[in-house]
Amino acid sequence: MSGNSFGKLFTVSTFGESHGVAIGCVIDGCPPGLPLSEADIQPELDRRKPGTSRHVTQRQEPDRVEILSGVYQGVTTGTPIALLIRNEDQRSKDYGNIAESFRPGHADYTYWHKYGVRDPRGGGRSSARLTAPVVGAAAIAKKWLRQQYGTVFMGCMSQLGDIAVPFEGWEHVPNNPFFAASGDAALIARMEDAMDELRRAGDSIGARIDVVARNIPVGLGQPIYDKLDADIAYAMMGINAVKGVEIGAGFKAVAQKGSEHGDELTPEGFVGNNAGGVLGGISTGQDITVSIAIKPTSSIRTPRRSIDKDGNPVSVETFGRHDPCVGIRATPIAEAMLALVLIDHALMHRAQCGDVRVSTPDIAKQA
Amino acid sequence: MSGNSFGKLFTVSTFGESHGVAIGCVIDGCPPGLPLSEADIQPELDRRKPGTSRHVTQRQEPDRVEILSGVYQGVTTGTPIALLIRNEDQRSKDYGNIAESFRPGHADYTYWHKYGVRDPRGGGRSSARLTAPVVGAAAIAKKWLRQQYGTVFMGCMSQLGDIAVPFEGWEHVPNNPFFAASGDAALIARMEDAMDELRRAGDSIGARIDVVARNIPVGLGQPIYDKLDADIAYAMMGINAVKGVEIGAGFKAVAQKGSEHGDELTPEGFVGNNAGGVLGGISTGQDITVSIAIKPTSSIRTPRRSIDKDGNPVSVETFGRHDPCVGIRATPIAEAMLALVLIDHALMHRAQCGDVRVSTPDIAKQA
Amino acid sequence: MSGNSFGKLFTVSTFGESHGVAIGCVIDGCPPGLPLSEADIQPELDRRKPGTSRHVTQRQEPDRVEILSGVYQGVTTGTPIALLIRNEDQRSKDYGNIAESFRPGHADYTYWHKYGVRDPRGGGRSSARLTAPVVGAAAIAKKWLRQQYGTVFMGCMSQLGDIAVPFEGWEHVPNNPFFAASGDAALIARMEDAMDELRRAGDSIGARIDVVARNIPVGLGQPIYDKLDADIAYAMMGINAVKGVEIGAGFKAVAQKGSEHGDELTPEGFVGNNAGGVLGGISTGQDITVSIAIKPTSSIRTPRRSIDKDGNPVSVETFGRHDPCVGIRATPIAEAMLALVLIDHALMHRAQCGDVRVSTPDIAKQA
Amino acid sequence: MSGNSFGKLFTVSTFGESHGVAIGCVIDGCPPGLPLSEADIQPELDRRKPGTSRHVTQRQEPDRVEILSGVYQGVTTGTPIALLIRNEDQRSKDYGNIAESFRPGHADYTYWHKYGVRDPRGGGRSSARLTAPVVGAAAIAKKWLRQQYGTVFMGCMSQLGDIAVPFEGWEHVPNNPFFAASGDAALIARMEDAMDELRRAGDSIGARIDVVARNIPVGLGQPIYDKLDADIAYAMMGINAVKGVEIGAGFKAVAQKGSEHGDELTPEGFVGNNAGGVLGGISTGQDITVSIAIKPTSSIRTPRRSIDKDGNPVSVETFGRHDPCVGIRATPIAEAMLALVLIDHALMHRAQCGDVRVSTPDIAKQA
Repeated sequence: MSGNSFGKLFTVSTFGESHGVAIGCVIDGCPPGLPLSEADIQPELDRRKPGTSRHVTQRQEPDRVEILSGVYQGVTTGTPIALLIRNEDQRSKDYGNIAESFRPGHADYTYWHKYGVRDPRGGGRSSARLTAPVVGAAAIAKKWLRQQYGTVFMGCMSQLGDIAVPFEGWEHVPNNPFFAASGDAALIARMEDAMDELRRAGDSIGARIDVVARNIPVGLGQPIYDKLDADIAYAMMGINAVKGVEIGAGFKAVAQKGSEHGDELTPEGFVGNNAGGVLGGISTGQDITVSIAIKPTSSIRTPRRSIDKDGNPVSVETFGRHDPCVGIRATPIAEAMLALVLIDHALMHRAQCGDVRVSTPDIAKQA
Repeated sequence: MSGNSFGKLFTVSTFGESHGVAIGCVIDGCPPGLPLSEADIQPELDRRKPGTSRHVTQRQEPDRVEILSGVYQGVTTGTPIALLIRNEDQRSKDYGNIAESFRPGHADYTYWHKYGVRDPRGGGRSSARLTAPVVGAAAIAKKWLRQQYGTVFMGCMSQLGDIAVPFEGWEHVPNNPFFAASGDAALIARMEDAMDELRRAGDSIGARIDVVARNIPVGLGQPIYDKLDADIAYAMMGINAVKGVEIGAGFKAVAQKGSEHGDELTPEGFVGNNAGGVLGGISTGQDITVSIAIKPTSSIRTPRRSIDKDGNPVSVETFGRHDPCVGIRATPIAEAMLALVLIDHALMHRAQCGDVRVSTPDIAKQA
Repeated sequence: MSGNSFGKLFTVSTFGESHGVAIGCVIDGCPPGLPLSEADIQPELDRRKPGTSRHVTQRQEPDRVEILSGVYQGVTTGTPIALLIRNEDQRSKDYGNIAESFRPGHADYTYWHKYGVRDPRGGGRSSARLTAPVVGAAAIAKKWLRQQYGTVFMGCMSQLGDIAVPFEGWEHVPNNPFFAASGDAALIARMEDAMDELRRAGDSIGARIDVVARNIPVGLGQPIYDKLDADIAYAMMGINAVKGVEIGAGFKAVAQKGSEHGDELTPEGFVGNNAGGVLGGISTGQDITVSIAIKPTSSIRTPRRSIDKDGNPVSVETFGRHDPCVGIRATPIAEAMLALVLIDHALMHRAQCGDVRVSTPDIAKQA
Repeated sequence: MSGNSFGKLFTVSTFGESHGVAIGCVIDGCPPGLPLSEADIQPELDRRKPGTSRHVTQRQEPDRVEILSGVYQGVTTGTPIALLIRNEDQRSKDYGNIAESFRPGHADYTYWHKYGVRDPRGGGRSSARLTAPVVGAAAIAKKWLRQQYGTVFMGCMSQLGDIAVPFEGWEHVPNNPFFAASGDAALIARMEDAMDELRRAGDSIGARIDVVARNIPVGLGQPIYDKLDADIAYAMMGINAVKGVEIGAGFKAVAQKGSEHGDELTPEGFVGNNAGGVLGGISTGQDITVSIAIKPTSSIRTPRRSIDKDGNPVSVETFGRHDPCVGIRATPIAEAMLALVLIDHALMHRAQCGDVRVSTPDIAKQA
């Protein structure tokens, strides 16, 4: 209720700050009988962890996850699963210089006004570091969805600043530091150069991320407010630095005619997927396709005008370790949020309609 | 929980179908002591009601609202406020021809697969008609927010298909049938012609809507999941036909650098509003600016390929009365959803931090 | 969230005041495909309606229910079901004399202090009349539970003031005005005399009600807080005038030894039911047995010391129509609350564990 | 939602099993600015911890609590507070003998049927050990309530089996091993003898606990379902082994007349407290008085008839360490649950009515 829990039936309650003792979460509502160990969770955490390339924060965090409860003899018991990740590489001094002033574009200002107190160490609770427990929880959701429906998740960066990354194939994503779905070495090199240039300039850049969920049962989603796409938008906009969300055709739908946008149906399935896999807030069984816009990191070395707590003008530069493009590590996070939305709706649908109506009819084929 | 309620503390539970007996809602959590009568609600309903121009559905519905409870001697009592709107102009026969098949791009397909049963009359529960009770509930939210903080809401259509509508001023919005913030008669004429052409062609078109909330207290919003912008995205994507949501700079943030995107602060206030009034999920006190993409209506007269319930190929044309551009009536709806999000967060913030911390410091001035 | 909704997955949001325009509720989460009409609901409402004997309030209310939504062609669609009951016999003048002062033992005092405003007509929102919509909603829950599991509900008054009513058989309940499970004509006559005497004296009396649910699947209930018995206690204590709740052995368990209290198991089933059908917060498949204590009506004709809004001493007598024993009509209400708890837990269990694990093994037989 | 979280605005999500790695909770919604350290929490945990006398389980657990988040520089930040308690004295072998069969009166049977899998070590999730994190969370709630309203909590055992414990004064509670509010040495000796006898016999016994909250603002509680007393009943019945709950006069109200039960009002305050501090579900400002019935421990050394997972008859005796009367340690737990209910309602009331209406008028004096 107070905003630190995600999901209604598969509920993830997170805790921790960037430079606190530990971060983690409690997962309530995981179905019993799912084989589970840290080995199912760690790989997902490793995909988003810092220090994997020179283009992301150099903070050294193994992000080693410990399961504290909810699993007995290698199987989930239906009781809460607690995940714990100890913070290891904390350098609070890096942040001392901004403790009394507000970084432009950062949560410093709003946290301080809301609570009258804030933890300035690494952005405290507002740090992107807090996405780690969610990625851990989502690893469990992904495993359950894969077992139940064969659901799989893919994601990639489709734009870095003004560099568009044409989609060539998912197989390329693990082979470059940007989660780019491209095998074009020259393009990757351009992206690397752009990032190196940015770092030298002490600036940051935005990015566009696309995520897809495949093999989805027809019928997930609730009218009228807990629509599947509404909850996806909520989940995505809740990721740090996200400023825009699109489902299917997204903003392209503005200039489309009905005769062009509406995906026709044939006995072989849907012809096209402008819907992005959702009609009337309920899944069609097609791929669910989502795109998000990620703003440039607000913590940059370039001096900027700001004020201190007393309203006096100051100049702020942020030293310390930061992602010059938070978008780079956002792909696994966006996949995670999508997985958490889907498991929640799968359980909700099962509550209302029973197992029997949770199925993927042959008709829901890809365009 | 089952998707037909909106809001956690100011909770609107809606009911009804397009061609049922009645539509309405129960509003739970309205603070006591607010002067209220139907006269506060009816004007907002009139802004979205059908039949106001030749460019929207010709269904004749006065949408007369009745308050059934929660108000005593002209003042809210803190108990549930029930709103009732009787459906008057029902023509179920209009829909008979699509009862057994699925309109491309419409919820027909998903409702039928989810529930195994559906009310085909006017789209049943999935009809845009169901936004009426929400607009009614939001009228109450708007009145309370205006009294508490002086909050006001504005909205306009900024694009109709491929026709961009440059912003000239809010005062123009009531003076044309499109909620266009423009006094350019030639432009309005072009829009009218485009709509007439569409109607003749039996087709439909998408639109882009911008909404703004002004005079917002600093500090509304919850980390990490119930961020103010996350809940706004949830609310907007939940509106019928919405496929994309942007806050502040939105997708433009992808190509921005941190030194360009982050809104600087001076003792006089923020310089710019790329944030759209939200940082770290919490309101800054600046205008909250939101844009949404609305897809073209799926019910069109143009014949389209589809299938029937048994999977046999059919050709579908939808006769009857439809908005050729649902975006035209979407502006008051988008304002309404934004108001419902804000009152919910205002109450939530008051719960956690008390009245004392709900304030708009002088510093939060407009750019 | 604001206290006027009951249930998480089968959610009943009620509205209305004793002497307002209408009372009713919105039921969200009813599974689709359930045959339903007013004829399924009216009989339950008739069991609790006023004016059925000289021992209850003489207010004349047919309590005729109208289904406004959620049902199409005689079957539930999975969308919200709205129930409306118009108030017909309002006599606000009856209450004028207590508008400015507080009835001892009544909600007048607390409502006024909480909200700073209250509707004094018939107790406004705090009236037992508001149990009508819940009984209506529970009729739907009962029908679904009966279809799914064969669940049935029974209830009776086991004590009226100091008159104990020994249990003889459920078949007697409809044959007397007290819901007594007794065929002892002399006992019933004593109860009638006691009530007549009370009315003459302008006083009221308390009662004890027992309710039972039979044919319950094993496994309903959540650890640790949403235990089945915890939610039953919540539901029962939420009924107007209830001051105590017992499950199974209840307060008798205080003096029991473990070797006496714990119900042994044999291949034929449980031996005894001190548990009242719940162990560790989860249903055992045995009868769920609940008892509640109902206080005497606070609105009586006997003059009592009180104060007015300004704190001045006053003498209060309540004229108008009241139940001298609210316990008399409480039996169907207690059954209704139990049914609402059970359907909510049945849906919740289905969400977590699927249909497959919702079953009543042969072993769960009655003692 | 899945039953392991308590509270809507001050939400405690717990995790852990009796013999797992650790137990703990995440507290979401604690207001910012509250001075807090482990030193505020540990004393409450020490009151309920095992091994304090020969009359409770001899399991040796220091129950040392660690705050993992939500506190910065000794003050709460408004973000989630995570509490961690490592399990130290685990002896799983003690429970091996009941892993395949069900203890009469124990959750073994229902957990196994619900989930199809269970952690038999010390009762796993159903162990009373899981009340420790809640007592820790409640220590924070108590501190906040004390600071805001001067609210204090008292509790005592008023009956042990058939030994009634007349109330003499709260000051006696810490001076005996039973939380008895009596200075009668002979009575305490009788209780000690009864417990020693029980232990020798390998049996267990029930108890009655009374708890009181003093200095409560008028106006806490929601109509109609989230009544303050309804939530108290939910909280109390959710405590392990509780079978009955009373507010104020409780079951005595059954035999009371309205002229006797209803607490009169004078300018000096209420005359009597049959209401137990709650009218119409809302606090009156008087003491909130609650009594609960606690059943005898189901794990006893006396051989009992039961069945194994395959339904074969077996004889079950439970060795290992158990409380022969779980009621002995229940007093601090009952106080804790009451505190959690009150802070949740205090925050909820503040949301709806603002700080201004949260006050304790002089009129709400004790009888």
